[in-house]
Amino acid sequence: MNFHTRKWVKPEDLNPNGTLFGGSLLRWIDEEAAIYAVIQLENPKVVTKYISEINFVSSARQGDIIELGITATHFGRTSITLRCEVRNKITRKSILTINDIVFVNMGDEGTPVPHGKTEITYVRDRFDDGSEA
Amino acid sequence: MNFHTRKWVKPEDLNPNGTLFGGSLLRWIDEEAAIYAVIQLENPKVVTKYISEINFVSSARQGDIIELGITATHFGRTSITLRCEVRNKITRKSILTINDIVFVNMGDEGTPVPHGKTEITYVRDRFDDGSEA
Amino acid sequence: MNFHTRKWVKPEDLNPNGTLFGGSLLRWIDEEAAIYAVIQLENPKVVTKYISEINFVSSARQGDIIELGITATHFGRTSITLRCEVRNKITRKSILTINDIVFVNMGDEGTPVPHGKTEITYVRDRFDDGSEA
Amino acid sequence: MNFHTRKWVKPEDLNPNGTLFGGSLLRWIDEEAAIYAVIQLENPKVVTKYISEINFVSSARQGDIIELGITATHFGRTSITLRCEVRNKITRKSILTINDIVFVNMGDEGTPVPHGKTEITYVRDRFDDGSEA
Amino acid sequence: MNFHTRKWVKPEDLNPNGTLFGGSLLRWIDEEAAIYAVIQLENPKVVTKYISEINFVSSARQGDIIELGITATHFGRTSITLRCEVRNKITRKSILTINDIVFVNMGDEGTPVPHGKTEITYVRDRFDDGSEA
Amino acid sequence: MNFHTRKWVKPEDLNPNGTLFGGSLLRWIDEEAAIYAVIQLENPKVVTKYISEINFVSSARQGDIIELGITATHFGRTSITLRCEVRNKITRKSILTINDIVFVNMGDEGTPVPHGKTEITYVRDRFDDGSEA
Repeated sequence: MNFHTRKWVKPEDLNPNGTLFGGSLLRWIDEEAAIYAVIQLENPKVVTKYISEINFVSSARQGDIIELGITATHFGRTSITLRCEVRNKITRKSILTINDIVFVNMGDEGTPVPHGKTEITYVRDRFDDGSEA
Repeated sequence: MNFHTRKWVKPEDLNPNGTLFGGSLLRWIDEEAAIYAVIQLENPKVVTKYISEINFVSSARQGDIIELGITATHFGRTSITLRCEVRNKITRKSILTINDIVFVNMGDEGTPVPHGKTEITYVRDRFDDGSEA
Repeated sequence: MNFHTRKWVKPEDLNPNGTLFGGSLLRWIDEEAAIYAVIQLENPKVVTKYISEINFVSSARQGDIIELGITATHFGRTSITLRCEVRNKITRKSILTINDIVFVNMGDEGTPVPHGKTEITYVRDRFDDGSEA
Repeated sequence: MNFHTRKWVKPEDLNPNGTLFGGSLLRWIDEEAAIYAVIQLENPKVVTKYISEINFVSSARQGDIIELGITATHFGRTSITLRCEVRNKITRKSILTINDIVFVNMGDEGTPVPHGKTEITYVRDRFDDGSEA
Repeated sequence: MNFHTRKWVKPEDLNPNGTLFGGSLLRWIDEEAAIYAVIQLENPKVVTKYISEINFVSSARQGDIIELGITATHFGRTSITLRCEVRNKITRKSILTINDIVFVNMGDEGTPVPHGKTEITYVRDRFDDGSEA
Repeated sequence: MNFHTRKWVKPEDLNPNGTLFGGSLLRWIDEEAAIYAVIQLENPKVVTKYISEINFVSSARQGDIIELGITATHFGRTSITLRCEVRNKITRKSILTINDIVFVNMGDEGTPVPHGKTEITYVRDRFDDGSEA
């Protein structure tokens, strides 16, 4: 699993007890997972369909740097299933794990359509012209 | 289940496809559930421990009014389990349901402590002096 | 008056003195009142026309839970007048009261149109098919 | 009356009908008025006590530039009364006027204390050492 | 240089070290500069093209009032160059200075078009009908 | 240069012309660069000191996915210099480049202190116990 997006926990992200507000964390995860789905399915019209159970293993405090990791675990006909882990960037301590986040590939009529993908591809492979170092 | 907090879906709540951003919705749910837990446990120090699977049944669009319902389904020794439903206020169509959101009752040392509650109580009952109409 | 929406006062809602920022509170009230007007007039196109004087009776601090109550007090031909009270959910201490918030019912041309309502109705009555417990 | 702070109406400031959300506007006014009070009373501990009636004369749309004007109209013993006007920067059309916004000057114990001011002063006069062009 | 927009540094504007988050400051500057460009070019379609080097001379803390000053220094054929200074409103201590912020005047096709301006004009001069005191 | 954090351009990130608001972009860059500096210097107390000129090469629209790349280019005694590139994740088209962002390493007294670093290190190397696949 690759960890991409990082967040610096700022006062605006805290709950009244001074720890990371769970709602902020869920918001970050949903955006990161949607980005991953859009890239893999090469379709900006994806919608969150299902999120499996979430265990909050540990919390984070102001000033902590956290990182979000996403990987695809299954390609359905019109859906994609992702796994997500959030951890502290410095200590690498896990904050939470979500086994299945399912996005559906939508067509212009707003109904699910097949996406034709069967495995993880990389933007590099699709776009690279060989000129990059 | 009582539905309390309402939201008016504004441009700032939309994903790039123009429907309600799932991350915003999860943020609202986490705040509403935390409020419910704080009120029931009479303790501001509660932390989200677990969220069971989430099915996104339908979406919402700009201008929709949605309402969030929470009820307690189980009182553990140091925890409380809540059920949540989000629906369209006008059409009453369900948007999503979460069976179990578990909060833990924390003490001053940051560890779980017993809360002594066994059933839903109402602020009215605790505070009312009988003078209210 | 029914109290619906609740807010948990978080760091992002504070003024530099560490108490609830009045501007955040006014923002919450305006959204809640608009939602109430939309529901009563069964028209999403409502605009705030007038707010009567506001007395800030007490403040709120980080971690406080506040609740917003709205009720309709007058139905004009093209307008609706609401009364609003904000109070601390736990102590029930009043934070502020606004006697009159007037919304105007707008038509598609952006001008006021009659709404035909004369009293408070409930979404339950309009939509309920009798199947709900 | 001097008009200082300007705002560019962006998508994040709109209500679902696509016009400036009244709640955003009230939030901007409260911040601007607080800033004015802090400067005049030379005390960062000011709290909003009262806002007189608000007439929403016209609205604003995405891309509009609006400007906020504040002036002090009365100096009480522990309070200051401000008048506020908001208008479209380009057309100069009035958006709303508030005759009285009252702030109270607070001491360290959180109770009102005399501020000793009787008229509008300018930061320039208080701080200028004469070296500025 | 005239200083217009003011900001009251609130908890939501802080970085995890408790001082003003540089990113918030840059966001405020970009909005203020865009407003200035829109007013001068009498065209809402302006885009930021270039920002010269930024020296962060001093910082700001919660509760500080800062003010932003902008002035036009050069009118190109399709562009305008602005200078910006941010300072503490009370102490007048400089927070940062930016010598050149360049905006381009865009036409309906999304390409640069001449704006026909050669010097700073004032909204007062363009719109005033002489009736204002 | 490694590209980590990604953003999905949502309505809340747009300027009134419907393209990515430059101020939002600058806010994202400052957070990402601060995170990079904190990780490299192993010190949460870093402050932005200098940003070299910024050329806005192209813009972004709603729904675009952009990614931010940062790399360290120089380690001073008490400072670190970073280079930043922002590009469209899908088309890889450059949005902007900043050659030098300088952060200063602060001590507990709020003054610059030596950080003792001379080259880029990876969290993996510092923390890994060899057990990770």
